[in-house]
Amino acid sequence: MATRASIPKGMRDFSPPVMFRRNYILSAVKSVFEKYGFSPIQTPAIEKKDTLTGKYGGEGDRLIFNILNSATDYKDGKMTFKQGESISDKALIYDLTVPCARYVVQNRNDIVFPFKRYQMQNVWRADKPQKGRYREFFQCDADVIGDNSLLSEIELIQIYDEVFDKLKIPNIEICINNRKILSGLVELMDAKELFNDIVIALDKLENIGLNKVKEEMKEKGVSDSSLLVLENFLSITDISELKSQLSSSDTGSKGVEELEFICDNINRLGLKSSELKFNITLARGIDYYTGSIIEVKQNNVKIGSIGGGGRYDNLTSVFGLNDVSGVGISFGIDRIYIVMDELNCFPEDIDQNIQVMLVNFGEQESIFCLPILKKIRENGISSELYPSSSKLKKQMSYANKKNVEFVVMIGEDEMSSGRILVRNMEDGTQKDMTINEFISKIK
Amino acid sequence: MATRASIPKGMRDFSPPVMFRRNYILSAVKSVFEKYGFSPIQTPAIEKKDTLTGKYGGEGDRLIFNILNSATDYKDGKMTFKQGESISDKALIYDLTVPCARYVVQNRNDIVFPFKRYQMQNVWRADKPQKGRYREFFQCDADVIGDNSLLSEIELIQIYDEVFDKLKIPNIEICINNRKILSGLVELMDAKELFNDIVIALDKLENIGLNKVKEEMKEKGVSDSSLLVLENFLSITDISELKSQLSSSDTGSKGVEELEFICDNINRLGLKSSELKFNITLARGIDYYTGSIIEVKQNNVKIGSIGGGGRYDNLTSVFGLNDVSGVGISFGIDRIYIVMDELNCFPEDIDQNIQVMLVNFGEQESIFCLPILKKIRENGISSELYPSSSKLKKQMSYANKKNVEFVVMIGEDEMSSGRILVRNMEDGTQKDMTINEFISKIK
Repeated sequence: MATRASIPKGMRDFSPPVMFRRNYILSAVKSVFEKYGFSPIQTPAIEKKDTLTGKYGGEGDRLIFNILNSATDYKDGKMTFKQGESISDKALIYDLTVPCARYVVQNRNDIVFPFKRYQMQNVWRADKPQKGRYREFFQCDADVIGDNSLLSEIELIQIYDEVFDKLKIPNIEICINNRKILSGLVELMDAKELFNDIVIALDKLENIGLNKVKEEMKEKGVSDSSLLVLENFLSITDISELKSQLSSSDTGSKGVEELEFICDNINRLGLKSSELKFNITLARGIDYYTGSIIEVKQNNVKIGSIGGGGRYDNLTSVFGLNDVSGVGISFGIDRIYIVMDELNCFPEDIDQNIQVMLVNFGEQESIFCLPILKKIRENGISSELYPSSSKLKKQMSYANKKNVEFVVMIGEDEMSSGRILVRNMEDGTQKDMTINEFISKIK
Repeated sequence: MATRASIPKGMRDFSPPVMFRRNYILSAVKSVFEKYGFSPIQTPAIEKKDTLTGKYGGEGDRLIFNILNSATDYKDGKMTFKQGESISDKALIYDLTVPCARYVVQNRNDIVFPFKRYQMQNVWRADKPQKGRYREFFQCDADVIGDNSLLSEIELIQIYDEVFDKLKIPNIEICINNRKILSGLVELMDAKELFNDIVIALDKLENIGLNKVKEEMKEKGVSDSSLLVLENFLSITDISELKSQLSSSDTGSKGVEELEFICDNINRLGLKSSELKFNITLARGIDYYTGSIIEVKQNNVKIGSIGGGGRYDNLTSVFGLNDVSGVGISFGIDRIYIVMDELNCFPEDIDQNIQVMLVNFGEQESIFCLPILKKIRENGISSELYPSSSKLKKQMSYANKKNVEFVVMIGEDEMSSGRILVRNMEDGTQKDMTINEFISKIK
């Protein structure tokens, strides 16, 4: 009996039209990464379970896809595990950050620090699939590892700006905050021990509004006087006011100083088309960030962030290497795709990957076409000969669906005259010419 | 306690120098695929177990990496499966051929046939790791699906030739045979029921020699008179003799006709640098091939085939779609890498992905450098500013290790003069110039 052709839930096939668009996004990101001096690395899809577990919190651990070991007992397609035999010690990667940290520690003697690496790979999460959330998805990360200079933050913001400008996505907002400012705020609120709860609630401000945020904080034990401090703090709009408010907190002041350095320099340099905005509520969960926090939104499409990142001071310490500061950003390719699709940002000719199709009128004609096709290809023109001599209508429909630019017809007449009949598929006009004329016309 | 940084056996990290070389190979393959009218698709890394099992033989099934389901019972990082609960219904893909067949059947109503697709992805096999054999490796496949014209075979041979020519790999031999010729031979030997045994033994001829092949066949029950026919057959060197020998077999004659058509046309068209050779012993295992069989070798490096493929008539029938003929080829990226490395085929400047590094002499100097760096990048030149003001020696060593072409020094003097000091890292010469002079020099 035949197997039913289907894929597991949360997985996707990418057909050519989608692939062309994804590749267009990826090559823009890649070229900017490389222009800014980042080098590619790749780590395996499969890591040891030890490497991954305990790095993403309990909920994260649960979403890791585990890989079954090969049982020593295997018969007729059935594996039997003996008592005490380990059934799984490997898993699929959940993100690129932890594998990168593992890579850096493992290869620390060969790596040239500061290590500017980028990494573009699939990751897998056993999440409940829903619109826009998949169990296999692509991550694009760039990080500067082993240096604490804020020049890296400036560079990463420029990268965001340049990529989105290149992709012609309008109304991009790059939000920035600093973890230390949040620490300063919590100090002012006199609620240090509730830091995580406060940050998690604050992160929801845009979605649920101030009243609900305050309610949530109250439930977690934040006092009324603390909430008053918070409310006052949230009304701050410029950095100088922030500075005076946080002057009593060393950590807070340091955060403001860092933020100011980055914003001042970006303002002085100018961005191509994005806008950099300080956003005091930006926290990006209770992630591993310790300094700058960055998040990118497109203001017309309601889809959440299309990129994010920040500075982390302790990423490699879980693998035993301390005092390595890093800062990185990530591009959310699936969401960028959706934004570009909705806003019609993809170039019109993106599906036009084949310029020329030669019609196949029969065995003699097709053999006659082969050297002509070879010549066209030698001129760097993407082209093909329809493989069999199907009805002309079928061949033309194929050319149409593949968005071919020109169809070349070489039948008996053309074989004897040495000229070819060229149909422009866009306007439907036909013209006869020599092969050389045709080639120079296209080039 | 810190986790030890290591990866599972058979897995690999790719560092920047390897990535540059791999990307060089992949982009050559990709550009030729697209020039010949092939479109990219991508299928998920994870397929349903039903889709994969039973397609690769018993040994193949055993090498499939199975993925553990999420148990309904999960506590403190431990999963417990209840009696009767399925522990695995998904697996990692083992090759790209079966997923492609599944994709074609599932999307048959949207696909434009003949479907010329290429696919470049990782696959996984729980094979015993050894030199040159990994548990995660990259496959590059191109197939023409839904058409039985031999023009596709011609095109695929041209693709091999063009890719290896582009990669400047010398002494490439493209071997060709036809499954129907092997069927004809077995008919002549009067040993039809031993077809698989005979083909498997014959496939080893180059490695173990004729006597051992005959011995193996004899053990499997091939008679002495059959072996005489075989020996006589193996001495055939040209196609016309093959034709007369196989004239009594319909299948064999059809195979010779197909082979002749392909070889004649390739000879007439000419290849750039590869050589096409008929090889009567080529069988590529007892694979799913039904017509042409193709295999590529490089004659100086002993590593086996660096590519292979053939025609298959029944690939989609396991998923319920009959009468779809296909033909495809595959590039063995890991082996091509080894060959190119041994023969020094990689371009000399392949590691030189950063053209310019600006030295960081301190905070004032680095801020002064930012607009200059921006201008250099706006001219499309890959460049970076060393992020912190480390010792000059450390910065120069970084530039050296990253193969930077030019190092730009802007200290106090340069800040006041408006000129910059440029060091050519290849010959060690230094020269002062304006920024515009420098930019036009590089471009």
